[in-house]
Amino acid sequence: MISLSTTALNKIHPSHGLSPAELDSVAPRLPKYLQNIHNRQQGFYSDEVLGSSLASSVDDSAEELFEKIQFFADSVEGKYESIVVLGIGGSSLGSIALREAFGHSVGGTFPELIVLDNIDPDLITETLESVELEKTLFLVISKSGGTPEIISEYFFFSKVIKDAQLPVRQHFVFITGPKGILREEANEKGIQTFPIPENVGGRFSVLTSVGLLPAALVGIDIRKLIRGAKKMRDIFLNKDAKVNLPFQLASIQYLLLQKKKNINVMYPYAHKLYRVADWFRQLLAESTGKRHAENGEEVFTGITPIAALGATDQHSQNQLYFEGPNDKLFLFVKSESFENTVHIPVPKRKNLEYLKDTDFGELLLLEMEGTKGALTEVDRPHITISISSISEEDIGELFLLFEGATAFLGEFLNINAFDQPGVELSKNITRELLLKRKK
Amino acid sequence: MISLSTTALNKIHPSHGLSPAELDSVAPRLPKYLQNIHNRQQGFYSDEVLGSSLASSVDDSAEELFEKIQFFADSVEGKYESIVVLGIGGSSLGSIALREAFGHSVGGTFPELIVLDNIDPDLITETLESVELEKTLFLVISKSGGTPEIISEYFFFSKVIKDAQLPVRQHFVFITGPKGILREEANEKGIQTFPIPENVGGRFSVLTSVGLLPAALVGIDIRKLIRGAKKMRDIFLNKDAKVNLPFQLASIQYLLLQKKKNINVMYPYAHKLYRVADWFRQLLAESTGKRHAENGEEVFTGITPIAALGATDQHSQNQLYFEGPNDKLFLFVKSESFENTVHIPVPKRKNLEYLKDTDFGELLLLEMEGTKGALTEVDRPHITISISSISEEDIGELFLLFEGATAFLGEFLNINAFDQPGVELSKNITRELLLKRKK
Repeated sequence: MISLSTTALNKIHPSHGLSPAELDSVAPRLPKYLQNIHNRQQGFYSDEVLGSSLASSVDDSAEELFEKIQFFADSVEGKYESIVVLGIGGSSLGSIALREAFGHSVGGTFPELIVLDNIDPDLITETLESVELEKTLFLVISKSGGTPEIISEYFFFSKVIKDAQLPVRQHFVFITGPKGILREEANEKGIQTFPIPENVGGRFSVLTSVGLLPAALVGIDIRKLIRGAKKMRDIFLNKDAKVNLPFQLASIQYLLLQKKKNINVMYPYAHKLYRVADWFRQLLAESTGKRHAENGEEVFTGITPIAALGATDQHSQNQLYFEGPNDKLFLFVKSESFENTVHIPVPKRKNLEYLKDTDFGELLLLEMEGTKGALTEVDRPHITISISSISEEDIGELFLLFEGATAFLGEFLNINAFDQPGVELSKNITRELLLKRKK
Repeated sequence: MISLSTTALNKIHPSHGLSPAELDSVAPRLPKYLQNIHNRQQGFYSDEVLGSSLASSVDDSAEELFEKIQFFADSVEGKYESIVVLGIGGSSLGSIALREAFGHSVGGTFPELIVLDNIDPDLITETLESVELEKTLFLVISKSGGTPEIISEYFFFSKVIKDAQLPVRQHFVFITGPKGILREEANEKGIQTFPIPENVGGRFSVLTSVGLLPAALVGIDIRKLIRGAKKMRDIFLNKDAKVNLPFQLASIQYLLLQKKKNINVMYPYAHKLYRVADWFRQLLAESTGKRHAENGEEVFTGITPIAALGATDQHSQNQLYFEGPNDKLFLFVKSESFENTVHIPVPKRKNLEYLKDTDFGELLLLEMEGTKGALTEVDRPHITISISSISEEDIGELFLLFEGATAFLGEFLNINAFDQPGVELSKNITRELLLKRKK
């Protein structure tokens, strides 16, 4: 269960906050924006991805995929000690978020999940040294099937496996689109593949095979993830702005961008949710950072995301957040409960009275209240997203909340939230530099 | 050896870049700013911290401290399997940066370094479960000796050690100032302590016991760290702006802040340097985020730092960096060499020609050139800080480069870079909330 608290926006100076009337003023746009989003034919909330009814129809393509993923995960249980994801950006951030949210609590016979999301030679060497090849499965993830970093890593580890005289088919699974180098390799070598729907972009793909297969392999309940996501999908499709949380979130982000809050700080107060903020960082940056509006006008728009962690970053960033430029909207994320209750055994001393009879979870959440209270006092806008617990259902809801909000934000900004035209430039320069090298 | 490349600033549109003449225009301020910094009597570059001459005088207080630290580290070698730092903010970020830069390359008989920099009860529980208590040393780090998070953690783990009938003195070492709860505890229980100089703030303390003791315990050569730092200290004290790299860096940050580059993205292209960017994040945020100028004027100034990682964040943030608002200065950080050379074994295929005969290190650095080239084309200012290798000397230089630049930046902005008056507000609110709870 997710709830959104926005009351602080109405408590601070109107030039930095939002009144209920201001929020209401954009509500009439909701049906039109929903229609626009439908017209874009993006699949992240579609039946093809989330399934129409998890319980009923087995001929549903999503249902088939969940079964295929779970079947594969069940069939290899106990076989691998390490799952190494070769993926970058949208092909890795979802897995990392899921691993950190649940990784330590699943345990048992499940393998560890290593995400190799960089081409640093020292990192690659360390990763290779840290695994036992016979008990390692490499998940190679690239929608285009031609991401240079991932292709390079695949050829490297594929050679390593061959050199160790191990069967490639037992150690590689691809998650890729219908075309590209990976698809050709899979066909040639008989490597098992899982699909990425054509109409789901990398940063919206956590609830496709891209995030679900690694999750299932380490024991995360993917059906519950989907169940939560579907709950939020229904809310996302609701035409009542009072109900539609993703629309509310986007309204706040948009209206405050008009008030020069061009930075969004996602500030989870739970270690396990920190990497959700990292995932969000890509989602918001790539979706909103655009040179051109849909009408071709040059706008150079975008919200710069920052991932902060409570209480850790109180001792690193709060000074700036309280006293620096008032250019940030803070999105606190908290869980109502922790897995563990850990009492703080303070001795009886006068200057420690305030820590009497408390536990670390309570202290952490009261520190969040301290940070929020201070932000309110200095007129810095903040909202709080609460989940009941760090459970698969709630995390599934959370993913769809942010994905839906980002889709709405694109409409508010009159941009295409689903493309990334800017990134080709650097890729081309790198490719030219590679070709120009003296051989 | 550190070098700074700023040529791209002169290649982009003047409204977003800097000409040599603009940079020269602030050079005359250097001697005055140096004098101001001296007058602030901050110890981060002092002989007390770095030593006047590492080779010569043994009666030098810094030299004595290095010996004490190294003696302690040597005397416990092989005794502990885990070093757990209980520290937050300035008491943890330096250790993490050092661990990530060198952690995997030292290895051998050295213990692992765990930094418990949060009070999340799930994290605390996992940390407790992951260590063997008999072979664990807790380093409790708090300058004031009263940081609520750290005091709470100390009392918790101290009870755990007592409950396990282990001697507290064998499992705790404090790094703390002359007063406060930790000092009282140390005196009472006979716990060994290491000092933090009074005139060195948390975010400038990595080269005091705070960073050096954890580093020495995991086999990092602290004398080389100091040697590098001293080299940069001499450069920092040089009155010639052509020589003074910290002053050059601060000039660029300041002049581009005037051109609305109010965000600094530190973008290392080496996995091992990512946490240096995290350390920098605190340094820049707390030092520059200030409501009041020194003359009392309300300025709400500050540069918002962002830590990005190459090549990973190309697939997450570059779209925003290339096409979003032109409000960022990019600080690339690279190492001229990696520890490992890892060849990429691409098969002969037409569409893979460009990856022929290359290795991951070369690919990574050419991807950086791609990102930099694209930024230049779209008029986004960037500079590159290069180190020869990820060695103790070069990392020591790097710390002093950024600390020195931050000191100069304070002068440019006419603020006190060494205080953090804003953070008390949230602490007081939390304390009140704790006291108000129903008992």
